[in-house]
Amino acid sequence: MKQLNRSWLRDVVARALAEDIGYGDITTQATISEDQKASGVFVAKEEGVICGLPLIEEIFHYADPSLLVSIWVDEGSRVKPGDVLAEVQGSAQAILSGERVALNFIQRLSGIATQTRKLVDIVADFPVRIVDTRKTVPGLRFLEKYAVRTGGGHNHRFSLSDAVLIKDNHIIAAGGITAAVELARKNVPHTMTIEVEVETEEQVREALAARADIIMLDNMSLEQMREMVKLIDGRAKVEASGNITEENIRAVAETGVDIISVGALTHSANALDISLDLKLLE
Amino acid sequence: MKQLNRSWLRDVVARALAEDIGYGDITTQATISEDQKASGVFVAKEEGVICGLPLIEEIFHYADPSLLVSIWVDEGSRVKPGDVLAEVQGSAQAILSGERVALNFIQRLSGIATQTRKLVDIVADFPVRIVDTRKTVPGLRFLEKYAVRTGGGHNHRFSLSDAVLIKDNHIIAAGGITAAVELARKNVPHTMTIEVEVETEEQVREALAARADIIMLDNMSLEQMREMVKLIDGRAKVEASGNITEENIRAVAETGVDIISVGALTHSANALDISLDLKLLE
Amino acid sequence: MKQLNRSWLRDVVARALAEDIGYGDITTQATISEDQKASGVFVAKEEGVICGLPLIEEIFHYADPSLLVSIWVDEGSRVKPGDVLAEVQGSAQAILSGERVALNFIQRLSGIATQTRKLVDIVADFPVRIVDTRKTVPGLRFLEKYAVRTGGGHNHRFSLSDAVLIKDNHIIAAGGITAAVELARKNVPHTMTIEVEVETEEQVREALAARADIIMLDNMSLEQMREMVKLIDGRAKVEASGNITEENIRAVAETGVDIISVGALTHSANALDISLDLKLLE
Amino acid sequence: MKQLNRSWLRDVVARALAEDIGYGDITTQATISEDQKASGVFVAKEEGVICGLPLIEEIFHYADPSLLVSIWVDEGSRVKPGDVLAEVQGSAQAILSGERVALNFIQRLSGIATQTRKLVDIVADFPVRIVDTRKTVPGLRFLEKYAVRTGGGHNHRFSLSDAVLIKDNHIIAAGGITAAVELARKNVPHTMTIEVEVETEEQVREALAARADIIMLDNMSLEQMREMVKLIDGRAKVEASGNITEENIRAVAETGVDIISVGALTHSANALDISLDLKLLE
Amino acid sequence: MKQLNRSWLRDVVARALAEDIGYGDITTQATISEDQKASGVFVAKEEGVICGLPLIEEIFHYADPSLLVSIWVDEGSRVKPGDVLAEVQGSAQAILSGERVALNFIQRLSGIATQTRKLVDIVADFPVRIVDTRKTVPGLRFLEKYAVRTGGGHNHRFSLSDAVLIKDNHIIAAGGITAAVELARKNVPHTMTIEVEVETEEQVREALAARADIIMLDNMSLEQMREMVKLIDGRAKVEASGNITEENIRAVAETGVDIISVGALTHSANALDISLDLKLLE
Amino acid sequence: MKQLNRSWLRDVVARALAEDIGYGDITTQATISEDQKASGVFVAKEEGVICGLPLIEEIFHYADPSLLVSIWVDEGSRVKPGDVLAEVQGSAQAILSGERVALNFIQRLSGIATQTRKLVDIVADFPVRIVDTRKTVPGLRFLEKYAVRTGGGHNHRFSLSDAVLIKDNHIIAAGGITAAVELARKNVPHTMTIEVEVETEEQVREALAARADIIMLDNMSLEQMREMVKLIDGRAKVEASGNITEENIRAVAETGVDIISVGALTHSANALDISLDLKLLE
Repeated sequence: MKQLNRSWLRDVVARALAEDIGYGDITTQATISEDQKASGVFVAKEEGVICGLPLIEEIFHYADPSLLVSIWVDEGSRVKPGDVLAEVQGSAQAILSGERVALNFIQRLSGIATQTRKLVDIVADFPVRIVDTRKTVPGLRFLEKYAVRTGGGHNHRFSLSDAVLIKDNHIIAAGGITAAVELARKNVPHTMTIEVEVETEEQVREALAARADIIMLDNMSLEQMREMVKLIDGRAKVEASGNITEENIRAVAETGVDIISVGALTHSANALDISLDLKLLE
Repeated sequence: MKQLNRSWLRDVVARALAEDIGYGDITTQATISEDQKASGVFVAKEEGVICGLPLIEEIFHYADPSLLVSIWVDEGSRVKPGDVLAEVQGSAQAILSGERVALNFIQRLSGIATQTRKLVDIVADFPVRIVDTRKTVPGLRFLEKYAVRTGGGHNHRFSLSDAVLIKDNHIIAAGGITAAVELARKNVPHTMTIEVEVETEEQVREALAARADIIMLDNMSLEQMREMVKLIDGRAKVEASGNITEENIRAVAETGVDIISVGALTHSANALDISLDLKLLE
Repeated sequence: MKQLNRSWLRDVVARALAEDIGYGDITTQATISEDQKASGVFVAKEEGVICGLPLIEEIFHYADPSLLVSIWVDEGSRVKPGDVLAEVQGSAQAILSGERVALNFIQRLSGIATQTRKLVDIVADFPVRIVDTRKTVPGLRFLEKYAVRTGGGHNHRFSLSDAVLIKDNHIIAAGGITAAVELARKNVPHTMTIEVEVETEEQVREALAARADIIMLDNMSLEQMREMVKLIDGRAKVEASGNITEENIRAVAETGVDIISVGALTHSANALDISLDLKLLE
Repeated sequence: MKQLNRSWLRDVVARALAEDIGYGDITTQATISEDQKASGVFVAKEEGVICGLPLIEEIFHYADPSLLVSIWVDEGSRVKPGDVLAEVQGSAQAILSGERVALNFIQRLSGIATQTRKLVDIVADFPVRIVDTRKTVPGLRFLEKYAVRTGGGHNHRFSLSDAVLIKDNHIIAAGGITAAVELARKNVPHTMTIEVEVETEEQVREALAARADIIMLDNMSLEQMREMVKLIDGRAKVEASGNITEENIRAVAETGVDIISVGALTHSANALDISLDLKLLE
Repeated sequence: MKQLNRSWLRDVVARALAEDIGYGDITTQATISEDQKASGVFVAKEEGVICGLPLIEEIFHYADPSLLVSIWVDEGSRVKPGDVLAEVQGSAQAILSGERVALNFIQRLSGIATQTRKLVDIVADFPVRIVDTRKTVPGLRFLEKYAVRTGGGHNHRFSLSDAVLIKDNHIIAAGGITAAVELARKNVPHTMTIEVEVETEEQVREALAARADIIMLDNMSLEQMREMVKLIDGRAKVEASGNITEENIRAVAETGVDIISVGALTHSANALDISLDLKLLE
Repeated sequence: MKQLNRSWLRDVVARALAEDIGYGDITTQATISEDQKASGVFVAKEEGVICGLPLIEEIFHYADPSLLVSIWVDEGSRVKPGDVLAEVQGSAQAILSGERVALNFIQRLSGIATQTRKLVDIVADFPVRIVDTRKTVPGLRFLEKYAVRTGGGHNHRFSLSDAVLIKDNHIIAAGGITAAVELARKNVPHTMTIEVEVETEEQVREALAARADIIMLDNMSLEQMREMVKLIDGRAKVEASGNITEENIRAVAETGVDIISVGALTHSANALDISLDLKLLE
């Protein structure tokens, strides 16, 4: 979590708590005394990879700086049902007011990490990288991409500004792949690589000739991909993209591509089931 | 969309665009002229219920006020693959800079609306309401709950401040259901109803005696639910909660409960596949 | 104060301090050494009910985390002239820079709490609730409604989104009270109650028939109110509204209504006189 | 309103609307069609001075840019019950969603302008200025000080950074009035004047000797003030401060002071009664 | 300007105007009528390259949407004293309230563009790129880097997240250049290049062996640079860095390096002299 | 630094860190362990006046509250190459993530303080004040004006709202200097002084007759200034403005003016060279 932009992190936590608490937790205020202490433990309810534990501290300290938070497993650990992940102790009112926000964050991030890990494991014996896309929930991209890393995946570009990805319309507007790659090379920072999305062998040849750094094979068949890998022959990194699933990812890896990008890691992640079990202390 | 808080809407759109654009769309700037015009159409790639169309206007007008946006189907429509949903015309650079943000929003919201509609249709011949929970993505709750309504569902409480939901710890802290309900009734606004989460018949009887307005049956078996509905007999609204799926929701509705709450509507929604097909205009 | 949304609280305190300090307290910087220590005590200058004490800590810790704040009376206490409420110790410069902001908050909140308490006491022997309205200062509603609770009152709805209040235009647009109530019941969360504002006996009868949960008698005479309470006879909660004053509130309570809403609690509250007496320490 | 900082204005309006609308106006959404048009007129319900009319446009255009707003009286006009102040036309839903926020702003600002005008009129035949203080509602100072100007008053300093006001603790810390004034003159911008708060004749003499620009007579009797005015004899501006009321302000003006500052203009202003009468259009 | 992140642009403009206007332009409000119209022309007072013209529109439209702004020269043009750059027409009060903010932005950005252009021209006949650094004014980096591009320069990385730059401490911590490059290659997105900062020939050899994409020669002598360029021989891009001035940049370019980075472009840019000449219209 | 508005300070630090860190320091994360400790010392690389040291603490504590910061020289000290200014100890990752932001702030502020001190020293034996202008970097004015004070200069007005400065267009619009000064005196707070910018002797005479508090001689020759000082003869403060440089400032001071304003203090300040030398600790 030291890896994360703290300004963004505090902002996203403050907003999430404000959203959920609104004018106050009226049920808790009515029924539980301000002095009531409690201990709450986060428990995994299903198997998966945990991500977001450091957010627990950020959230509960924001809600009430006097709460004590202990993290009991490593970020990125595989957990099984019943595993205790973390504990928070202190004011019962404060714990309850942060409960749902904490769960919403770590369930989603752990869901992404778990799904990423599953795909990474399937292709573990290939020299291939599983990467994410920009298909993330608006406002949470920095966290969702962190969850992909936590699950053993890698990140593709973070935003439109940190890598070049030339697609069909750029090619048409520039007047061809050669022209588009040249324009990009001339204008973008020297630190950036140039990736071209292609659909045909002819395009691959043109991208190679233009010395693209990365060639993205868009929705090609397994056979096509195999041929293109052979054709490219290490002169550019090869990325497979489009409709990658648990079922076909191993076959895609077998084609020899270097990178497989999977939008579903983030756009269709399911929450990992985690609960907060609270015990009132006398 | 007139239903939505415009302050929140503008804020969430501005943040999402800032996040995705960063220091600028370097690929587009390098390869497409500022004067290049284009037309982009949003096309459904799979069957579903559309939600979020008005966001398209908000996003593209934010990106460039001179873009023209036309919406071609009604919010909440069922669409099939190939249906054209909306069109945006103007600067190609501007359209490309808003593309991913627009898709991220409407794919997620349409995914929620579609999943909601599916469950609502399954129980359409029962007098039961499908409702959401607070298991939403931090920062987007107002949009996700709007998507549930768009899909034919209803909303449960928005935040901790707009309804009373008495759970196990509140009951323990207050010294029983009776005391908890009384404390709540005494302290919260007279406009609020009081809901109690129960796990046993005994608790149902106590909640009824305390005149709870809504009784939530937590993770009960179908048979238990049927019995409780009979026992409650219209004296309180009955809500079923816990592990509701496409497979069991019809059976749950048959028990006679008034409300079924489904966390998965939002915490595990899959994006609906929608694309933006762009054509450069000379 | 644990009851308050901390995100909102920090935001409102940071803004208030920025507003008052601007480019810096030029008088204090010119005349008082950075090392000068001081002790400041908050003293009541008139009788009233204190509200906002916990804000003192929030404000001075924001201004300078090394200041020590001690709160000497309970939030909601009745105080008399000369009572010491709280003390702050540390850098004289820092105390002076937070002084006006602290006073502005607690004088206003205490003014609201004091006025609320006065009305609550007048009707203390009736089973009636004094509630606020949405006539609050823009941006401070969560604090002003907290002050009403601190003064012994209750809150009406917080915003347009947490309760249904059907007024004349809703009735006209919907085609009558019956239709309006039905539309509301069908569309709003099951956790919400439905209140109808009425002006005539006929409207009361229609609201009752439609099974409204709360009936607001708008600007009725005492006699009318008495009759309506009899007519309603416990089938709905009854709220009196409009031109309630210290003079007439007891008579209104005697009519048997359940709730009396008073806009003046917040829209015309007078500040309670409180001062900060500062002593420089050598 | 052209006078106001537009960044602050938009910010305060966006926040106020977000606060009041929350998750949406559920009553209006349930009972009034999106297509329903309406016309709303703002009507004075009591005599006073109107302030805040331009906010109406800002608010309703924020809520819905297609609403038409017409302002019918001049900002700062005296109005009597029944006077129509402004009209807003368009979507009934949008008008209702901005109603309370608009009223909350203009009722408060008009209350301040009305109270200011009352005091200004009482002393109209004296060459004296009525000024405000920093006892304003946190976050709304720029608007409240604008209301004072609209009511014919003048502003005292806006914040701690735009004028020097030397009080008792500054005097003690600096080692006397002479030293404090010298320190201030040496350190603050040459554009700033120096005001000293005094309680005794001796302090007045010392302030004069130190060539203070303004001398504030704090809580002096009328007779003392008269004497001090004679003593100062035009060598500094004289400001009267402390417990000024409608009853005593004329007598204070008669003492010959140049400025009378009145905290109650803002800290205890009562809202002016204004309503929005809405008529649905077919 | 279409290239710029509009969310950031609006934010920075709103903040700058709020900062400069404060509680209002008291001089203008006191002396110029609200109805007074004016025309203001921006005129270059010295030779240079213009940057920031589109900000003029953003600023004045924010201040008052009814102002008309005409831009008369192309962004990035060379101008000479007396050249008219742009014109703004409408309310004199509004123009005056935006004047200083507009000048502050375009003077600084034009200063950066002018200085960049000067260096770029000096080395125009070499195949070398002049690039900026991260030594920018906090909060304005996106604008300052845009000014560098406008002046004919290129950008180095925008932030710590969009390129790898391995420096001495990374090398030490990783245990050598080879290890550091390998760690980076393994962990960062495949779209990123890897740059290594070196000080000796031995380090250059190690970086080459590790297949660094870019080698930054830190503070080397001209002779050393020449030798290193020969040694590297096209196997990596070569960047010269450290104490580059107008005097020595041509000599540095002659060494054959591909990139020259110059911190002074932004950290020590002088404002270009531009004025706004205002004429009141009857 | 106690002098600074903490709300603004925290905001500007949070934004600067967010800007520089983006999605994370990918180089450091890849090559340096989370557990690696380090010590970094800030060292002056050239002679100058140090300003901004307290920001170091603000920045590093924001980045990581567990970092230890020690400040070794006084704010405003003159330093020479090699002087150690401050030290930060703790997580190497955290130190590296705040390094560039800290340097960008203190290099710029120290550059301003150094340049100010140079001019102040040149005229040290004259009773004249060196003041800044509003030609500051958007968003950082409060810091840049603080740097001017730190360098021994004084501030001119902070914004358009805290002093009156009547320029040519105000004079024309008001119908002359006399009218403009009267309008200003009548409308602005009594705490404000009135400054008039003049270009001719006739205007000086008119400004004197109107009893302006300050007269700004705009771009006059040394001889003209000398004459005007004689003419004004203490009846108003005299400010020299326009094209002041190191070369001519002493001559300007000799004319007897009270104040010399220098835009270049802020609009063309060069960064002072400071480095952060980091040592990894085992």
